[in-house]
Amino acid sequence: MNTHPARGMRDFLPEEVRRRQWVVGVIADVYQQYGFEPLETPAVENIETLLGKYGEEGDKLIFKILKRGDGGQAGQADLALRYDLTVPLARVVAEYHARLPKFFKRYQVQPVWRADRPQKGRFREFYQCDADAIGSRSMVIEAELLGAAGDVLERLGFADYTLRLNHRGVLAGLLEAGGVSAELQGEALVALDKLDKIGPDGVEAELTSRGVPDKGAHLLLELFGAVTAPGRLATPQAAFNEDVMARLERLVGPARPEAVVELRQILTLVTPSAAGRHVRLDPSLARGLSYYTGAIFEIAVPDLAGSLGGGGRYDNLIGMFLGGDVPACGISLGLERILVVMGEREMFPGGLGRAPAEVMVTIWNLDTVPDALSLAAELRSAGLRVEVYPEADKIGRQFKYASSRSIPVVAVVGDDEAAGGLVTIKDLDSGEQQRVPRAEAGDRVRAALAGR
Amino acid sequence: MNTHPARGMRDFLPEEVRRRQWVVGVIADVYQQYGFEPLETPAVENIETLLGKYGEEGDKLIFKILKRGDGGQAGQADLALRYDLTVPLARVVAEYHARLPKFFKRYQVQPVWRADRPQKGRFREFYQCDADAIGSRSMVIEAELLGAAGDVLERLGFADYTLRLNHRGVLAGLLEAGGVSAELQGEALVALDKLDKIGPDGVEAELTSRGVPDKGAHLLLELFGAVTAPGRLATPQAAFNEDVMARLERLVGPARPEAVVELRQILTLVTPSAAGRHVRLDPSLARGLSYYTGAIFEIAVPDLAGSLGGGGRYDNLIGMFLGGDVPACGISLGLERILVVMGEREMFPGGLGRAPAEVMVTIWNLDTVPDALSLAAELRSAGLRVEVYPEADKIGRQFKYASSRSIPVVAVVGDDEAAGGLVTIKDLDSGEQQRVPRAEAGDRVRAALAGR
Repeated sequence: MNTHPARGMRDFLPEEVRRRQWVVGVIADVYQQYGFEPLETPAVENIETLLGKYGEEGDKLIFKILKRGDGGQAGQADLALRYDLTVPLARVVAEYHARLPKFFKRYQVQPVWRADRPQKGRFREFYQCDADAIGSRSMVIEAELLGAAGDVLERLGFADYTLRLNHRGVLAGLLEAGGVSAELQGEALVALDKLDKIGPDGVEAELTSRGVPDKGAHLLLELFGAVTAPGRLATPQAAFNEDVMARLERLVGPARPEAVVELRQILTLVTPSAAGRHVRLDPSLARGLSYYTGAIFEIAVPDLAGSLGGGGRYDNLIGMFLGGDVPACGISLGLERILVVMGEREMFPGGLGRAPAEVMVTIWNLDTVPDALSLAAELRSAGLRVEVYPEADKIGRQFKYASSRSIPVVAVVGDDEAAGGLVTIKDLDSGEQQRVPRAEAGDRVRAALAGR
Repeated sequence: MNTHPARGMRDFLPEEVRRRQWVVGVIADVYQQYGFEPLETPAVENIETLLGKYGEEGDKLIFKILKRGDGGQAGQADLALRYDLTVPLARVVAEYHARLPKFFKRYQVQPVWRADRPQKGRFREFYQCDADAIGSRSMVIEAELLGAAGDVLERLGFADYTLRLNHRGVLAGLLEAGGVSAELQGEALVALDKLDKIGPDGVEAELTSRGVPDKGAHLLLELFGAVTAPGRLATPQAAFNEDVMARLERLVGPARPEAVVELRQILTLVTPSAAGRHVRLDPSLARGLSYYTGAIFEIAVPDLAGSLGGGGRYDNLIGMFLGGDVPACGISLGLERILVVMGEREMFPGGLGRAPAEVMVTIWNLDTVPDALSLAAELRSAGLRVEVYPEADKIGRQFKYASSRSIPVVAVVGDDEAAGGLVTIKDLDSGEQQRVPRAEAGDRVRAALAGR
């Protein structure tokens, strides 16, 4: 019988679960510090809720659930697995808007499923950690989201991350300024994205071959080249941002004043924060999803090709469910990628690979089992994590088992101890052991743990 | 557009999530105190992993996932949603047995999906909280699982629960003693289960009509009647258990010595524990699932028709994946039902409906937004949960919003405060307010919170 998990899915054994829970705990704690409240939605949605929200490619990657019962036509699907956390949020806001506060700030940490071709670091079930604020058009929201992302990364131990920041309106303005017609914008961005790989001449050739006028291609390259050329990356970040912002104000400001002002506001608000020194304006940042309407951002670290997370403003998506414009802005942290980088860099704190218990109670013989169990109960009442060896095995074998499980302390109630109301506590590291009254057993174990 | 969650599924708004997380936290904490380690498996399994494990009825309730791509035949399903946590555990034990310890004790808290007809308290997505121990045939395992269940219930605040205990071997022995042939055992149990409703005469009539010999029907009734008659329920629990155990030893002991000895061992081991006074032998307890081979148990409270959880020993299931017998025993707590009863009884601690933040920072005007954001950052560094009102709204409106969100304290950096490096902290309950240096803001907020 095949016992592998399904293709692209993973089992998480205890050590891995502890790492995951630790990272999720940090993320949830920071989100809460920023006033976000927890939300959970079902793994399964009505299929119409999801279809048409992620583009044609996205629709193909949705896992569809077969209709139940004999009544359903063969092959018909009426349900589907959650594809991201944003569309369910939009549905929730529409469904409960009368009960929600004016500014609804929720965080959500749940798995999503995509029928992508599995590859290194890409899975068919993966967790997203989202924070979104609904109901305000203020750039305070963008600044707070970037601040929260920065706090999460700092607390996880990242020092070298970059918060790439752009604005959809500014990007559109730039492309317009370069003479790129609306229908060519997507292709132009793809070409510009290759600057690192094929150089300015290659990009210019590609732009013109895709129909961008010569003059426009040149203008675009001048700007993007100035922004992303390797030499520029060494510029101190504040000066760099100021320089780029000034260029954008000059180039795009007249045609798209609001977008440029918003970007300037975010920069002003975020600069004094801890996240501020990691923010870098990046006019080439586009983000895949079509629903963004304003600021967009993405988290990069040098040793990962993809991003650790990203987000932006999407003022129209909720309106698809509720009708009317509802302003919204959010960020999504990718748990799996954060874990990959933290694993490669060995960033996890030591205590996470912890033993399954702090102390193991041995079974001396069948007659003393009740004593062993009540000792275990006493130690648990003292707040300790306690394993009971389940069988009346040879005592040496029980000690060996505790060692193999990295359980640091063993407690023995043998015949003598049972008769005298005593217990022997042995520190497996030092080999020291001591016979103490039962009532002192908890303190003795704690002392042994503290001495390690 | 339909914005309801899918049929039988639920959205959990923040207050509900906090309740759920609190209960899950207690359960996980107790399981860890008993040496169980966390495991997570994918929501989606290969369909062959699940089919044929839950009986014919179970198979019908499995959500099936449509094959992707154009290659798949119409209507074909190759994947399915997790139906319980036990079969995935069996698969995991088979897959990783070389890496797992001799005694693998895992807990798992994850949702499962069943295409049941939704009704009050029954959902299509619900959480199970399981603890299972693999690798030992010792009744220490059963005693520890009952102990853990008892500790969970005590810590949640339940005082009136009953841990119903039986043994599949004893049950089979009883029915044999009553002359019930193997193929009639299922029907006999259904009839006996109605004792409360239709009385001994009704049950006796039903038993004989189902083909149980007169003498056997009488014998069964004598035993089950003596056990479950209302008068007997008032008997002190220890005397009751001893009385039932003695009857079972007399009636079933000769034919099924091992089963009776195991039941006696569990009773002996669990009696001194905190859970001990809640354990009640119940020879009529059968449990639905077919894979149990030894002890079975179920948690009952007076105000719920179903159970809060249950479990038992299943020494053959893992062998279906791994080959050969692998002893196993586990318990499953039903999160949804625990929440239903706790909700009806108002058992949740007060702090769970907590405000989204401990303090809200107002926005005085557009010029002071950077001051407001850096104050928020300072307060967060001091460990506080901080909401920032996102817009430069009328200050009275901002105060009203904080009140409506039950945020107890508001911090204001107006023009004067900004100029003097000060901040005004206002306690919304008492109405008291105080202007303090920025560096003291955190302490001042904490003092206001402590005074409530």
